[in-house]
Amino acid sequence: MGKVLMKGNEVIAEAAVQAGCKYFFGYPITPQSELVAYMARRLPEVGGLFLQAESEIAAINMVYGAAGTGVRVMTSSSSPGFSLKQEGISYLVGSELPALIVNIVRGGPGLGNIQPAQSDYFQVTKGGGHGDYNIPVLAPASLQEIVELTREAFEIADRYRTPVILMGDGMLGQMMEPVEFSVHPESELPEKNWATTGTRGDGAPKIITSLELNAEGLEQRNHALQKKFKKIKENEVRYETYNIEDADYIMVAYGTVARITLNALNKARNEGVKVGLIRPISLWPFPEKPFIETRDRVKEYVSVEMSAGQMVEDVRLAVNGHAPVGFFGRTGGVVPTQEEIYQKIMAVAKGVTL
Amino acid sequence: MGKVLMKGNEVIAEAAVQAGCKYFFGYPITPQSELVAYMARRLPEVGGLFLQAESEIAAINMVYGAAGTGVRVMTSSSSPGFSLKQEGISYLVGSELPALIVNIVRGGPGLGNIQPAQSDYFQVTKGGGHGDYNIPVLAPASLQEIVELTREAFEIADRYRTPVILMGDGMLGQMMEPVEFSVHPESELPEKNWATTGTRGDGAPKIITSLELNAEGLEQRNHALQKKFKKIKENEVRYETYNIEDADYIMVAYGTVARITLNALNKARNEGVKVGLIRPISLWPFPEKPFIETRDRVKEYVSVEMSAGQMVEDVRLAVNGHAPVGFFGRTGGVVPTQEEIYQKIMAVAKGVTL
Amino acid sequence: MGKVLMKGNEVIAEAAVQAGCKYFFGYPITPQSELVAYMARRLPEVGGLFLQAESEIAAINMVYGAAGTGVRVMTSSSSPGFSLKQEGISYLVGSELPALIVNIVRGGPGLGNIQPAQSDYFQVTKGGGHGDYNIPVLAPASLQEIVELTREAFEIADRYRTPVILMGDGMLGQMMEPVEFSVHPESELPEKNWATTGTRGDGAPKIITSLELNAEGLEQRNHALQKKFKKIKENEVRYETYNIEDADYIMVAYGTVARITLNALNKARNEGVKVGLIRPISLWPFPEKPFIETRDRVKEYVSVEMSAGQMVEDVRLAVNGHAPVGFFGRTGGVVPTQEEIYQKIMAVAKGVTL
Amino acid sequence: MGKVLMKGNEVIAEAAVQAGCKYFFGYPITPQSELVAYMARRLPEVGGLFLQAESEIAAINMVYGAAGTGVRVMTSSSSPGFSLKQEGISYLVGSELPALIVNIVRGGPGLGNIQPAQSDYFQVTKGGGHGDYNIPVLAPASLQEIVELTREAFEIADRYRTPVILMGDGMLGQMMEPVEFSVHPESELPEKNWATTGTRGDGAPKIITSLELNAEGLEQRNHALQKKFKKIKENEVRYETYNIEDADYIMVAYGTVARITLNALNKARNEGVKVGLIRPISLWPFPEKPFIETRDRVKEYVSVEMSAGQMVEDVRLAVNGHAPVGFFGRTGGVVPTQEEIYQKIMAVAKGVTL
Repeated sequence: MGKVLMKGNEVIAEAAVQAGCKYFFGYPITPQSELVAYMARRLPEVGGLFLQAESEIAAINMVYGAAGTGVRVMTSSSSPGFSLKQEGISYLVGSELPALIVNIVRGGPGLGNIQPAQSDYFQVTKGGGHGDYNIPVLAPASLQEIVELTREAFEIADRYRTPVILMGDGMLGQMMEPVEFSVHPESELPEKNWATTGTRGDGAPKIITSLELNAEGLEQRNHALQKKFKKIKENEVRYETYNIEDADYIMVAYGTVARITLNALNKARNEGVKVGLIRPISLWPFPEKPFIETRDRVKEYVSVEMSAGQMVEDVRLAVNGHAPVGFFGRTGGVVPTQEEIYQKIMAVAKGVTL
Repeated sequence: MGKVLMKGNEVIAEAAVQAGCKYFFGYPITPQSELVAYMARRLPEVGGLFLQAESEIAAINMVYGAAGTGVRVMTSSSSPGFSLKQEGISYLVGSELPALIVNIVRGGPGLGNIQPAQSDYFQVTKGGGHGDYNIPVLAPASLQEIVELTREAFEIADRYRTPVILMGDGMLGQMMEPVEFSVHPESELPEKNWATTGTRGDGAPKIITSLELNAEGLEQRNHALQKKFKKIKENEVRYETYNIEDADYIMVAYGTVARITLNALNKARNEGVKVGLIRPISLWPFPEKPFIETRDRVKEYVSVEMSAGQMVEDVRLAVNGHAPVGFFGRTGGVVPTQEEIYQKIMAVAKGVTL
Repeated sequence: MGKVLMKGNEVIAEAAVQAGCKYFFGYPITPQSELVAYMARRLPEVGGLFLQAESEIAAINMVYGAAGTGVRVMTSSSSPGFSLKQEGISYLVGSELPALIVNIVRGGPGLGNIQPAQSDYFQVTKGGGHGDYNIPVLAPASLQEIVELTREAFEIADRYRTPVILMGDGMLGQMMEPVEFSVHPESELPEKNWATTGTRGDGAPKIITSLELNAEGLEQRNHALQKKFKKIKENEVRYETYNIEDADYIMVAYGTVARITLNALNKARNEGVKVGLIRPISLWPFPEKPFIETRDRVKEYVSVEMSAGQMVEDVRLAVNGHAPVGFFGRTGGVVPTQEEIYQKIMAVAKGVTL
Repeated sequence: MGKVLMKGNEVIAEAAVQAGCKYFFGYPITPQSELVAYMARRLPEVGGLFLQAESEIAAINMVYGAAGTGVRVMTSSSSPGFSLKQEGISYLVGSELPALIVNIVRGGPGLGNIQPAQSDYFQVTKGGGHGDYNIPVLAPASLQEIVELTREAFEIADRYRTPVILMGDGMLGQMMEPVEFSVHPESELPEKNWATTGTRGDGAPKIITSLELNAEGLEQRNHALQKKFKKIKENEVRYETYNIEDADYIMVAYGTVARITLNALNKARNEGVKVGLIRPISLWPFPEKPFIETRDRVKEYVSVEMSAGQMVEDVRLAVNGHAPVGFFGRTGGVVPTQEEIYQKIMAVAKGVTL
C-alpha cells in the first residue's frame, strides 16, 4: 500500500482501524466530525461497531463498558464535548481501562468557535477530571506522525491499562497530506486476563470498578496508580529536538505550531541567531530531559502556543529557574504566522520585550 | 446573633443565604448532601428557589441561566459530580457570569469513596474545562472562615463577573464548630447593567454568550479575559503565614490539613526545629509572594496534601529552583495525622528522606 | 377589567395565572410556544416560578414534585412533546396529584408538521400512559371558553386530586379574539392536607408515591381510583347542543371544528335539512346523555374531526347500535372548510356516501 | 431440535434471534429483565449487537436508527418504560419502519408493582403516542405460541413496514414451559429497497423521515397510512374460539387470562352451562368477525381482564348493542383465579349481577 492523500481526522480513524480498533462511540462536533463520519462507514467493513451516542457522556460511558471486555475502543470529540467526558475519563483511570480518547481542540472557553487551538493543554495534562491521575497525551505534528502515534497510543493503553489521549488542533484535523500505512509487527503486550468476558464456569466473576469505600484500600489503589504513572514517566517520554546543541535560545512548541516555529527558526538561523526547538510529542509525560541538559547554558526558552500560556508552566517546571522562560501565543482560533514567530525570536535575541 | 453550632456544609449554605444568594440548583452527592438539604428548607424562607435538577449537568446550566439575570446563584457537588460540570463551568467563564460553585472533595479517581480528600486541586486551579481560563478558588480551613469566604466569594464573583469556586474537603463539610454570622456592610460592587432582565423598551436586547465565530473576535475576548485574570492575581491573593520569619523549613498546606500541620509544627518548634507554615487561602491565584520573600534563605519547603502531589507543583513554580521542595501526602480519603506530619518535619530537619 | 385582544396560547397562560397557578415547567414546541413565553414573563410578576426544563420528561417530573406540595402547577406541550410525558402523567394519576397539562395538538404521527390537528384524541382520552386510568380532558372552542375552562380545570384537579388535560388544536392556540377575565368567587375545595410541605414536628412525614408492591394493596388503590373516575363521570360531563331537538341528523364536533361545523349546519338548516350538533366540551368523561336521549329517533350521527376517526369510536359506543354513525375528517394539519362539511351534511341527508 | 424448557421472556428472545433479529436495544425493568439478559449473551453468538441504552428513550431511538437500515431489530420493556417509548413509537409509525416492541405488562398506574397485569391494553391498541395510527398487537397465551407469534410479528413488520407490538403479562414472561423451535421456510417478503444503507453511487440518497411540513402532503401520507391499516385489518386478524357454536354466553379473554378462563369454562360446561370463549390473539386489529357471527343469538358477552375494563370497550364496539356486554376483572397485579371466573360465569348464567 503506497501513499494516500487524506484529511487528518480521517487518518486518525484509519490508523485506529489498522491498530485493531473495532469500536467507536461518539457524538459529532466540529472540527472533528470527519473522524466520526469515517468510522461510521469504515467500522462495519471490519466487522466492528460504530455508534453515535445520545451525548458525549453516553459515549464515554459506552467506551468504559466496551473497554472492560478487553477490545480496542475509542471516542473522539472537540473541546466542549471533551469537557463533558471528564467524569468518564476519571472513571476509566480509576478502573484502569485502556481506551483512546481524541481531542481535536477548538477555540474557547465556552462555546467559542471552530477554529484551531491548543487551549486544552491543562485539561489533558493536569487532569480535567477529579482525583489524582495522569493520562499519557500524544500530540502529533503531521499526518504521517498521526499514523505512528495512533498505533502507539493503543499499545501504551494496553501495556499500562490506561486511557490515552491523542490531542490535535483543528488545523491538524482538517489539513490534507499524503500518508502511508505500513504493516507493523504486533507488539508483545500483556494478556488481558482482567477482561470481563464472562466466566463460562472457569472461575469467579471478574469485577471492574473504581469504587473502594475503604480509605486504606483506596490509598493502596492510588499507590499502585502512582507507581504506574512513574513507570510511564520513565518509559514513554517522546520528543524531538532541532538544533539545540549550540542554541542560545530554544523555542518550545508542539503540534502544528511546531511546524510553523521550525520554519521561523530556520529563517532566524539564516540571520545568524543560534536558535533551536524542543518539540514535545508526549505532553504528559512532559520531556524534562532536553531542558535539564540545556538549561545551564541557554539564554532563554520561549514557549510558543495556540493558547494564553499553558505549556509554559511545564517548561518553567523543567527549567526550574536556571534560565528565563518567555512566552508567545495566539488564542481564540488564531494560528500564529511564521513571520510573527520569527519576529519574536529576533526580539528575544536582541533582548527586546515584544 | 451569637454563636451557633453547625455542620460545615450547612455553614456554607447559611453563609450563602446571608450573602444574598436566593437560588440554588444542584444534585445530591455525598459528602455534601447536607448543603443541598439545608438549601431545600432554607431558600423558600427567604423567597428564594431551590431546585434539585435532573443531573449535575442540568444544574450547572440552570446556574448559567439564573446568573445571566444578575441574581446571586450557586451550585454544589463533590468530585465526580464536579467533573460533570466542567463544560458548564467553561461556559460561565466564557460568558463572564458570576456564580458560586462548591466542591466538597472526596477520594478518587473514579467513583472512589466518600472520605475527605484534596485531590481535585488541579481540576479547580488549572481548569478542568476547555479553553484558556482561571477561576478564583477559595479554600477555608475552619467553619468561621467559611462564613467570611462565602461572602467574599460572591463579592469576587460580582466584582469580576466570574464564577468562583469554594473548595473544601469532606472533613470540613462534615465537622461541627460554633460559628457566628455577623452583619456586614454591603460592599460597593459594579452595577449589573449587563443582566438580561428584559428590555422593557429601554434599549436593544442584551445578549450573553460565549460564542464568537470570528477568530480575531474570540482572541479579543481572550485578551479581555486574561486582563481580568491578571487583575484578580494582583488583588485577590489570600493566605496566612505562621512563624515563617525565622523558619529554616516551611510547610505548605491548605484546608483542614493546614490545621493538622499547624499542630505538628508547634510540636516540632517545641523540639527546637525552626519550622513555619504558609497556608494558601486562595488556591488560584496562588500566593507567590511569601515564597519569593523567603525562598533565598529557607532550607526546604514541604507541601502537605491529601493528594498524591498537586499543589506541590505550584510551590515549585513559586520557589523556582531557589530551594528544594518536598512533599508529604496521603490519598484515597486517608487524613494525615499530626504525628506523621511531625515525623515528616523532623525527618526533613535531620536531612532524612522519609 | 374589560375585553382584551389576545392569542389563544396567551389566554391559557393568563387564565392559569388568574386561577392561582404560579408554577410552570415546560419545554418549547410549536405551536404552543407563546404559552411558554408568556409564562416566562408573567410568573415572576406574581411571585411565581417559570422554568424551562432540560426536556419534556424533566418538565413533567418537576410538575410532579411541585404538585406534591399542594401548589397549582402546570406544563404544556404539543403532540410529540406530549407523548414524552406519558410516563409522568401515569405517575401523576397513580399518586393522585392535581396539575394542569396542556396539549396544543399538531399534525402527526411522528414529527409531522406544525399545523392544527385533533389526532391526539385517543392519547388523551384512552390513556397514553400505562395502567388503568382516566384523566378529565377539556376542549374549549373559543378563547373566552378557554378562560372559563382553565379555571375549572384547576378546580377539577384540586377537587378530585387528579391531573387534568386542556386540549386545543393549533388553530385555537394561534387565533386572536377578545376575551374578558372576570373575577370569580373562589370555589370551595377540599383542604390539601396530603401535601408534603414538611412536618414541622406536627406528625409523621407524609408520603406521596404510586409504588405499591403488594398486589392486593395495589388493587385497593385501583378500586379507589376507579371509584373516583366514576364520580367524575357523574359530575363533570360538559357539552353543548345546537338544534338537536328536532334533528334528523346530528353532527358531533369539538374545539374549533365545532365552530366551523355550526356554520355549515346553519347553512344546511336554511336548505331545510334538520341537522343538529353535539359539541363535547369534556372529551373524557364523554357526554353520553345527549346521544342516549336522541339515538332512537335520529337517522344518522356524523363525527367531524381533524383526525382519521378517533372520537367516532366514542360516538359509536354512546349510540350503541341504535343508529348509523358516520365520519368526516381531515388530517395532517388540514382544517376542514365550512363548505366541505356542508357538502357532507347534504350528502348524508340525501343518503349519498361521500 | 426437540423440546426445551425455558422461561417466557427467554422464549421471546430466542424466537426473535431465530427469526433473524440480530439487534436489540433496551433498558432493564422487571418483569422482563430475563429477555434483556438473554439477548446480552445470545446476540454476540450470531454476530449481532446487544446494547443497553442510557434510557428507554435512547433505546427506542436506536431501534429507529437500526430499523432504517433494513435489519430486524427489537426493544422490550414493561409498562412505565413502555410509556417512555411513546414518542419514538409514533415516529416509527410515521416513518414506516419495521421493528418489534415487546411490552411485558405489570401493575399500574405509575410505579405500581412488578406483578402481572394487562392494563396497558388501551396504550397499545388505541395509540399511546400522538397522531392517527394503529399498530398490530399480538398477545400470545402460551410459550409455544410466543415462538410462532414472534416470527409472525417480524413478518408483519416487514410486510407492511410497521412496528409490531408483542404484549404479554408478567406471568407469561416468568412462567416456564417446554417449547420447540422448528425451522420455518422463509416467507416471501417485499424487498427493503427503502433502507438507507448508503448509495454507493447508485442513485439519490434515500431519506426516511416523518417530517412533512406541508399540510396537504402530510394528509396524503396519512391517507397512505390509513390505507395500510385497512389492509392489515383485512389480513392480519388472529383469534381462537372454543365452543362458541352453541354458546348462550361467551367469555372474551386474551393472554394467560384466556387459559384460566378456558378451565373455568370447562367446569361450567360440566354443570350444563353453554358457555364459549373468544380469545383475541391480535388485539389490534381486534377480531370483530366472531362477535358479528354470534351477537344476534348470544345472551351475554363477558370480557375477562387483568385490568379495570379496557378490552371490554372493543367488545362493545364489536357487539354494537346486539347483546349485553359484561365485565370481570382484577387489577394491580392480582391474577384472577379459575374459581372466581367460574363463579362469574355461573352468576351470569343465572342472571345474577356479581
